[in-house]
Amino acid sequence: MSKRQRADIESISGLEPEERATELPPTYVVMKVVPDIHEKALQWLATKIRAKKSDGGGELVAILQPKTNAEEEYTFHISATKIKLLEIAEDIDLVKPDPRGRPREFTVASLDDFLIDGTTIDDLLTIADRQTIVLHELENIRALEYEKFIPGYPLFKLHENQSIVPLAHNKQLITKIYPLHDDEELKKLAGSWYMPRWFKQPIGDIKEYFGESIALYFAFLEYYTLALVVPSVLGLFGYIFTETVPFFCIFNVIWVTLFLEVWKRKSNELAFKWGTIGMTSLDEPRPGFRGFMGVDAVTGKVCPQSPRFMTYVKMYAVSLPIVIICMILAFYLMLISFWAEDYMKELFSPEDYLVMIPSIVYSILVTVISAYFKDFASFLTEWENHRTQSQFERHRVTKLVLFEFVNNFLSLFYIAFVIQDIDMLRSQLQTMLLISQAINNFQEVFMPLGMNYYSTKKSQSLKQQKTSHKTNPEVEQEKAAAGSFPLLNIPQLQPDDPRIKQVEAEGAMEEYQDTFDDYLELYIQFGYVFLFSSVYPIAALWALLNNVLEIRADAFKMCQLFRRPFIRKVKDIGAWQRSFEVLGGLSILTNCGVLYLSADIRKRFPSYSDVELLIAFMCIEQLLLGTRYLIHIVISDKPEWVRVALARKSYESKQALKFERSQKNKKILFRYRTVQ
Amino acid sequence: MSKRQRADIESISGLEPEERATELPPTYVVMKVVPDIHEKALQWLATKIRAKKSDGGGELVAILQPKTNAEEEYTFHISATKIKLLEIAEDIDLVKPDPRGRPREFTVASLDDFLIDGTTIDDLLTIADRQTIVLHELENIRALEYEKFIPGYPLFKLHENQSIVPLAHNKQLITKIYPLHDDEELKKLAGSWYMPRWFKQPIGDIKEYFGESIALYFAFLEYYTLALVVPSVLGLFGYIFTETVPFFCIFNVIWVTLFLEVWKRKSNELAFKWGTIGMTSLDEPRPGFRGFMGVDAVTGKVCPQSPRFMTYVKMYAVSLPIVIICMILAFYLMLISFWAEDYMKELFSPEDYLVMIPSIVYSILVTVISAYFKDFASFLTEWENHRTQSQFERHRVTKLVLFEFVNNFLSLFYIAFVIQDIDMLRSQLQTMLLISQAINNFQEVFMPLGMNYYSTKKSQSLKQQKTSHKTNPEVEQEKAAAGSFPLLNIPQLQPDDPRIKQVEAEGAMEEYQDTFDDYLELYIQFGYVFLFSSVYPIAALWALLNNVLEIRADAFKMCQLFRRPFIRKVKDIGAWQRSFEVLGGLSILTNCGVLYLSADIRKRFPSYSDVELLIAFMCIEQLLLGTRYLIHIVISDKPEWVRVALARKSYESKQALKFERSQKNKKILFRYRTVQ
Repeated sequence: MSKRQRADIESISGLEPEERATELPPTYVVMKVVPDIHEKALQWLATKIRAKKSDGGGELVAILQPKTNAEEEYTFHISATKIKLLEIAEDIDLVKPDPRGRPREFTVASLDDFLIDGTTIDDLLTIADRQTIVLHELENIRALEYEKFIPGYPLFKLHENQSIVPLAHNKQLITKIYPLHDDEELKKLAGSWYMPRWFKQPIGDIKEYFGESIALYFAFLEYYTLALVVPSVLGLFGYIFTETVPFFCIFNVIWVTLFLEVWKRKSNELAFKWGTIGMTSLDEPRPGFRGFMGVDAVTGKVCPQSPRFMTYVKMYAVSLPIVIICMILAFYLMLISFWAEDYMKELFSPEDYLVMIPSIVYSILVTVISAYFKDFASFLTEWENHRTQSQFERHRVTKLVLFEFVNNFLSLFYIAFVIQDIDMLRSQLQTMLLISQAINNFQEVFMPLGMNYYSTKKSQSLKQQKTSHKTNPEVEQEKAAAGSFPLLNIPQLQPDDPRIKQVEAEGAMEEYQDTFDDYLELYIQFGYVFLFSSVYPIAALWALLNNVLEIRADAFKMCQLFRRPFIRKVKDIGAWQRSFEVLGGLSILTNCGVLYLSADIRKRFPSYSDVELLIAFMCIEQLLLGTRYLIHIVISDKPEWVRVALARKSYESKQALKFERSQKNKKILFRYRTVQ
Repeated sequence: MSKRQRADIESISGLEPEERATELPPTYVVMKVVPDIHEKALQWLATKIRAKKSDGGGELVAILQPKTNAEEEYTFHISATKIKLLEIAEDIDLVKPDPRGRPREFTVASLDDFLIDGTTIDDLLTIADRQTIVLHELENIRALEYEKFIPGYPLFKLHENQSIVPLAHNKQLITKIYPLHDDEELKKLAGSWYMPRWFKQPIGDIKEYFGESIALYFAFLEYYTLALVVPSVLGLFGYIFTETVPFFCIFNVIWVTLFLEVWKRKSNELAFKWGTIGMTSLDEPRPGFRGFMGVDAVTGKVCPQSPRFMTYVKMYAVSLPIVIICMILAFYLMLISFWAEDYMKELFSPEDYLVMIPSIVYSILVTVISAYFKDFASFLTEWENHRTQSQFERHRVTKLVLFEFVNNFLSLFYIAFVIQDIDMLRSQLQTMLLISQAINNFQEVFMPLGMNYYSTKKSQSLKQQKTSHKTNPEVEQEKAAAGSFPLLNIPQLQPDDPRIKQVEAEGAMEEYQDTFDDYLELYIQFGYVFLFSSVYPIAALWALLNNVLEIRADAFKMCQLFRRPFIRKVKDIGAWQRSFEVLGGLSILTNCGVLYLSADIRKRFPSYSDVELLIAFMCIEQLLLGTRYLIHIVISDKPEWVRVALARKSYESKQALKFERSQKNKKILFRYRTVQ
């Protein structure tokens, strides 16, 4: 941004330069650094945060929180000037509604367009926007050519233009980076979110506070829960009048297809409103993207470049085989648990409690292995070096879903089609569905609640201990300062600043990783409900009841139990869409297969031979697959109004480009003529 | 375009205004009008063509060809000024390579960008471009508010802004509209197209001369022919060593999927190069699109508007049921022919020639009904009122393909799965494949060749007759003129103008309808080759041989036998892509089914029961369907470089829009401040 532009903004926003200097900047992001960090590294980090862009810096405002003892981490409160915030808002293509209410990329030059009805610059960017911007700039602090390693740590190598903060975070120098909650906003949000009796969620407000990724999860959860109402009612009906089950099954598989296709429309609608629909794999790379610095083919800016095919090679030649081997191993583990159970049944009576040991051991093993595989999948996907966060997430989720599919569903397939015991399948399904729901609810709400309670108590008692044998707080503080290094040029917070308490309290909260666990829970439930709905039609009802609770529990946990997460922009639910679709497709196979195997059908059509029955079921299956394909074709991915709005935008852009080029051309022509 | 802009172009192009006036404009499009047209209507048409845009006119140049006798049609030679051509080239977003060779929309203001290396304006627009532009303007001649009907024909009602030329064409007042061949270009094209021994076609040149639609057909034909090489070799192998057939089948269905997915990439690549990739259903409406005049939601221009859902209602509530009924009737017709054949076999000995009567009658009936159905489908699709030509084509082709599927393939399904006679299937397949190829080649080349020869001879003899008892050509011409009306303000061609001969010769040629018949031929062949490749593996080889000839035959027919067609812009092969894909999917079912039914397999696995074999084939089928889905996911629709180029363009446009908006904003701000 030129100096003139800065002056422009200042005059537009009515801000006097002095005003800003005297103001105490609010804390947007907190960064905690290990207490035993090398002095050089700490000073370097602090300098980098505040340094100029041209020096690889973040041009941010950093304030140090005074330490109360030597073991305490260094806590930086990070903020930014208003001009910086606006500048970066333009850079990251932040989307805001324009005067006509249409989402539009914000630009500094057209600032006034966005200041509608007496709103000021302060209202324009929400706290969440500012936090996103500060994080963006933190992640864009880059190493200069001569900075070969982190000062004080010759082993932590840097290459030119490497993003520093993710590396320091990865190497455990930075322990935590988190934005702060906005208590007032949060209270408002909670009041309209999980307090009302009916579950129409304020998706727009959730998006404003928690970002697109989380808002989309809740939109999906709500939509899926609503979609469950019809199968629940029909399932209850099928539970009572068992002869209706085949029709219920056929209805279900069509319903699932419809539901997923319509969700795609709904998701695109939201993505359009949120301005994320245009996200592509060619957008700005994620900070972890490795590559040589080069001119970007799309934007012409200098940013890391890495050939796409290397990623493909890594994915298909290494990751895919490894994941398949893991899946096969998980499959064998399942088989072993079945064999062990059979063996135990032979040893003891089938009613003996000891018989349950193999399945209990298997469940525990699966949980442990899943946790390890999660880290492993993240490592593999990181190594594959995907350009954008969305791509990274998609490929990570794909790996995890494949693995979890084996863990959660293959035992059901085995019981249904190898053991061919429908009663066993039903009881297994029932146990797994209900137990998994119980465990999940416990894990999600009660455990964090308990841990939170425990950790608050602990920190309180620690503080009490300290204050009890404290004589003079100033002496104590000097002592603490003695254990730390004097930081050049970094202002310190007043020790009585109210923010310190908030920062510590939120720092002690559990971190919200990402939406993976939440989606996985729905995915497994979806599988239990629809894969074998012919065997256990009432599953939909249990799922519905669970989800009505789930919405509140998840909302409560987001608002009360977790540290505030950073906003993550997404345009859709990523790999989950396809994962659910594959389950939907498989449900046709499994339901037809189970119906064919059930004794019921044979009783009802005694005159048909096995081959004839099988062929009949095959035909039904193929017809259902065909119907699925037709539904997929007929329902377009985007609603008409979104298509029109996108086309209009693209048309306007093209016209602007034409105009710009013609203007340039005229100038050239003019110069050419005057020279002649 | 403003006057100043016009002056700009004139100075850029180095054209003096007088130069244009004295020049005899070349004929781009020929329009023939019935000889018995009402005088008023003729005068009105001629005036409209030359009238100003604001008067609903075409602003074109029209020259009348002198009539040699009263029964001859009125022939207008239609041309346009250079400025008009450039102006419309911009309006229709004509794409030309810019200095860096990247396709870019032409604009008058950036004219100089496109004049690379000493090319002049005359080289910039090809003859085909000019013909397209003139046609576009002809189709944009519109009725004014007070023009309630075509003068002289009170029954031919007009509504405001209705496109006149298509209506007059439809009502048979205009008999023919066609562009003229460019003999020099055509000779060059033919030389590099069907004369060389190997069949690497000059797709770029074909596109320049015949347009995107036809060029894409030839690109597809070439690509498909190349793809047939592998199945041909393997099929020959399978023909000799019959035990390899099951593997050959599995290979084939995967090959088909791969081929179609890769074609999508190739097609997108061509569409990008040709600048048609961005075509959407929201583009400029086709001339036949009916609706009230309103502001377009995308472009803001005034053009016909009609709610999309009306089209959907018509499609799904009326057209779809009708097409399904037609398909069922066609299916019954097929059944009746089978029953009749059985009946004949009972009456006579099975070797009697009389037994063939039902199938011969059936074939003839199918041909006749197909021809009627084609008109009917066009009528239905026209009535559905699709906005763009591409949509119109897609829905028309879908209807026709569904109907032709029943006519061409259902008898094979019937033989395979109802009669379950594999030998009968093989002989039927062989007969249908070879006969259809023979008939097609005959129809496509020899018939038009003969007809052309016949009609040229006839017209020559007619002329000779006339000239023989002609005494004075001038008297004769006066006589002819007496039968026609004097047209105001329309210049006449000199009677010895060499163009007259060309216009008459090309007018006598057959009209090239569209690519439908060509694609249909490939589609039917594709079905014969892949649906039952387990039964008749050598079909691929016959198809390959046929297609090597077909390329030349089609190219010859395009260049020599048909009147020049207008350019039709397309971005893909439309409904054909999906039609081929559905056949590919079905081929998995049919091949697995036929393999299961064949006695061969039972002999080879005698220890397996029927149910076990059936389950095995079901599993293979499901696996193949899964593989198909995977291939579909893994192969992205567009090559990486096209994705990057599109993203760059979209990025540049967005930047331009941002810039334009900020400029506007600054101006407003400036005004606001100066007023204050």
